[in-house]
Amino acid sequence: MAERIKTFLPEEQMPTQWYNVIPDLPAPPPPPLHPATMEPIGPDALAPLFPMALILQEVSGDSYIDIPDPIQQVYRLWRPTPLIRARRLEEALGTPARIYFKYEGVSPVGSHKPNTAVPQAFYNAESGITKITTETGAGQWGAALAFACQMFGLECEVWQVRASYDQKPYRRLMMETYGATVHPSPSTATETGRKLLEAEPDNPGSLGIAISEAIEVAAQDPQAHYSLGSVLNHVLLHQTVIGEEALVQLAELGETPDLIVGCTGGGSNFAGLSFPFLREKLAGNMAPVIRCVEPAACPSFTKGVYTYDFGDMAGFTPLIKMYTLGHSFVPAPIHAGGLRYHGMSPLLSHIYDLGLMEAEAKVQSECFEAGTLFARCEGIIPAPEPTHALASAVAEARRCAETGEEKVILTALCGHGLLDLTAYDSYLTGQLQDYSYPAEAVEAAMAGIPGAGG
Amino acid sequence: MAERIKTFLPEEQMPTQWYNVIPDLPAPPPPPLHPATMEPIGPDALAPLFPMALILQEVSGDSYIDIPDPIQQVYRLWRPTPLIRARRLEEALGTPARIYFKYEGVSPVGSHKPNTAVPQAFYNAESGITKITTETGAGQWGAALAFACQMFGLECEVWQVRASYDQKPYRRLMMETYGATVHPSPSTATETGRKLLEAEPDNPGSLGIAISEAIEVAAQDPQAHYSLGSVLNHVLLHQTVIGEEALVQLAELGETPDLIVGCTGGGSNFAGLSFPFLREKLAGNMAPVIRCVEPAACPSFTKGVYTYDFGDMAGFTPLIKMYTLGHSFVPAPIHAGGLRYHGMSPLLSHIYDLGLMEAEAKVQSECFEAGTLFARCEGIIPAPEPTHALASAVAEARRCAETGEEKVILTALCGHGLLDLTAYDSYLTGQLQDYSYPAEAVEAAMAGIPGAGG
Repeated sequence: MAERIKTFLPEEQMPTQWYNVIPDLPAPPPPPLHPATMEPIGPDALAPLFPMALILQEVSGDSYIDIPDPIQQVYRLWRPTPLIRARRLEEALGTPARIYFKYEGVSPVGSHKPNTAVPQAFYNAESGITKITTETGAGQWGAALAFACQMFGLECEVWQVRASYDQKPYRRLMMETYGATVHPSPSTATETGRKLLEAEPDNPGSLGIAISEAIEVAAQDPQAHYSLGSVLNHVLLHQTVIGEEALVQLAELGETPDLIVGCTGGGSNFAGLSFPFLREKLAGNMAPVIRCVEPAACPSFTKGVYTYDFGDMAGFTPLIKMYTLGHSFVPAPIHAGGLRYHGMSPLLSHIYDLGLMEAEAKVQSECFEAGTLFARCEGIIPAPEPTHALASAVAEARRCAETGEEKVILTALCGHGLLDLTAYDSYLTGQLQDYSYPAEAVEAAMAGIPGAGG
Repeated sequence: MAERIKTFLPEEQMPTQWYNVIPDLPAPPPPPLHPATMEPIGPDALAPLFPMALILQEVSGDSYIDIPDPIQQVYRLWRPTPLIRARRLEEALGTPARIYFKYEGVSPVGSHKPNTAVPQAFYNAESGITKITTETGAGQWGAALAFACQMFGLECEVWQVRASYDQKPYRRLMMETYGATVHPSPSTATETGRKLLEAEPDNPGSLGIAISEAIEVAAQDPQAHYSLGSVLNHVLLHQTVIGEEALVQLAELGETPDLIVGCTGGGSNFAGLSFPFLREKLAGNMAPVIRCVEPAACPSFTKGVYTYDFGDMAGFTPLIKMYTLGHSFVPAPIHAGGLRYHGMSPLLSHIYDLGLMEAEAKVQSECFEAGTLFARCEGIIPAPEPTHALASAVAEARRCAETGEEKVILTALCGHGLLDLTAYDSYLTGQLQDYSYPAEAVEAAMAGIPGAGG
């Protein structure tokens, strides 16, 4: 009998609860503040944008939250996802390490994003909302929300950064196939957009502008809410199904991870994989190193400041304490569109600050080298984002080849790269440029943040 | 406990043999003929292009052929594939029918094509060949072969129809990511290509031209072979892993299919799903209707003639008896690139001629309507090819809604449409055109076929 490569769980073993890591932490995360008063904001302040069920999850002190049945039913379209051993990659590296990846690319949209889009759509529909607005860059999040809204009969209106809207039409077409309306941002559909277009008709847009447009429309329409695909506590909560499954799958194989490594942009994918393992680590059941990998071009953990900052460019949001490059940060045009946010999830920031995780930064050429090697060994072409984690896993496995350590490495393969192939083309044809964000720039960006250094 | 949606088999239950339907048929299929002598050709005639292991499979009289272990190891990267119940689609249709789909889109390249690309690469590598050439249209087959060649350390050289090469770069980039060399066809790399480009520098290419170029290079290089992604017996043989798995999966659910429906271009995907069920039907264990669905624009079964014809446009191949629209057939520009071949697999043609399968033709607007409905219910956006089968399944399920019949429908979802989203865009924006190939044209095309009517 040949060795098993994939570990699937039957649907019956899909998690029925999300895991909230907050009660298990040695200290609670700092609360969001109102920018005018610098006082903690209450749940009510979020009510114009989010349904109460999600707001309560955002501030919940419960360790576990039941996943409602209609959400489980949609999850079952693709969950549980496989845990796969990268046997051919190990052989190519000549390493005694065992490399496992938890693969979220089997979802209909090809990424982990539906894990939170589906519950967000469900709770909004349940609360009587009929439309959800959101922003999207390359379109991963917009596609997930469009799919989720279709599942629960909601309208979905997406503002997509104009540069992506024009140059990378595939994910826009995916959103439209799911029945969503997609605007290039800045758009003429909002006051924010119209003003920007008046001043600069060719404005290429940014995630910050798109957020402002989506919030503007949701705030003005009592039937509409806004939805965010990363950063917030409830988003990270929903993603924990990834880690709960992986925990069971590794246990079935009799494996205990020595290193858990994932890419971090807003942080939701890696929080989803790592939090259940962090619980086990805090309980003394295992002792894995938990490592975040971020682009050198957007190094919020490794070069950012842990301070209160705005979540968006315009300063519409509450102040949240996080590792940040400053809300005016303009990312270099790296291909990992999902890793270009100026800040890091406040919960992940807090955990990093507590010393429970480590972080490193990688330039994209090393990431695409790892991604190409992975594709040629395992078949799956990874999205640019998780190639950051792969680069770190590959480096670790090579170290093991030297030391002889049989480390068990678990990495988060949060999506496939079938709609990101032009990025691989840049790499393969030698046109890829590497960017490292200079530390001096961070210091300058801290000016104008109300709570900087606080 | 909620009802199960997906049925996975553990890797241990992956088929270890391919099934050859020929010995179970009431009559053997007619042999290929040499065009000059009109005599049956022997295995040796194929030796310049194919390794002997594949030639022996092409003419095998054994019912089962063992799948070598290295092939099983690669299959395990994504196989067994899931059998999924389209519960939400059933609800949307208000039908008492139960609709199951066997989903091959989970393979690394997103289609069923690696099921044969992998063994073809393996047997070529085993025979000492170092390079495989092939043609590809939209790129599904080229991507699968590029992946498979990478698995066994072979060079892969692909001629892609120039129109697709220029307009749909994603699958070309996929091939290159797997390390293949891709030429736009006609190319300057072959005598055939150079002549065509001299006469018409803007020649957009065709599958027939690309086949001729790939064969020319393989025939001249003793270290190179040629590979075909459909039509031939050994290709259909390799695809039977699909049906063998589905048979076990349906049995696990206690279901017996009343209708098995799939799209047919060259025929390999549907043969792969249906042959194991045909075996059971011939043995009297079940009595499903087996239905092929083809585009009205390329209706080889429903409007073609069952006769000896060439497999390629230039007349390089042996004559094979098949349902054909004539080897000079030029398909209308429908989006289902995989369903535009002028003929039908000779084995499937023979089985259809024996009355063991039925066929129908669909215009593409009905197919994309079904595909969009499916995507909005099930999440997965189907490739344009399997939407033909979905259109037939949906029509059948709607009939069941009227009659109250609880039919069990099994359909072949042979790939996802993430790289075909522009086709959905045409449909959603009302720009899709329907084509029906006129019967008169078929008659005219029969002139110039040596064995026409024979």
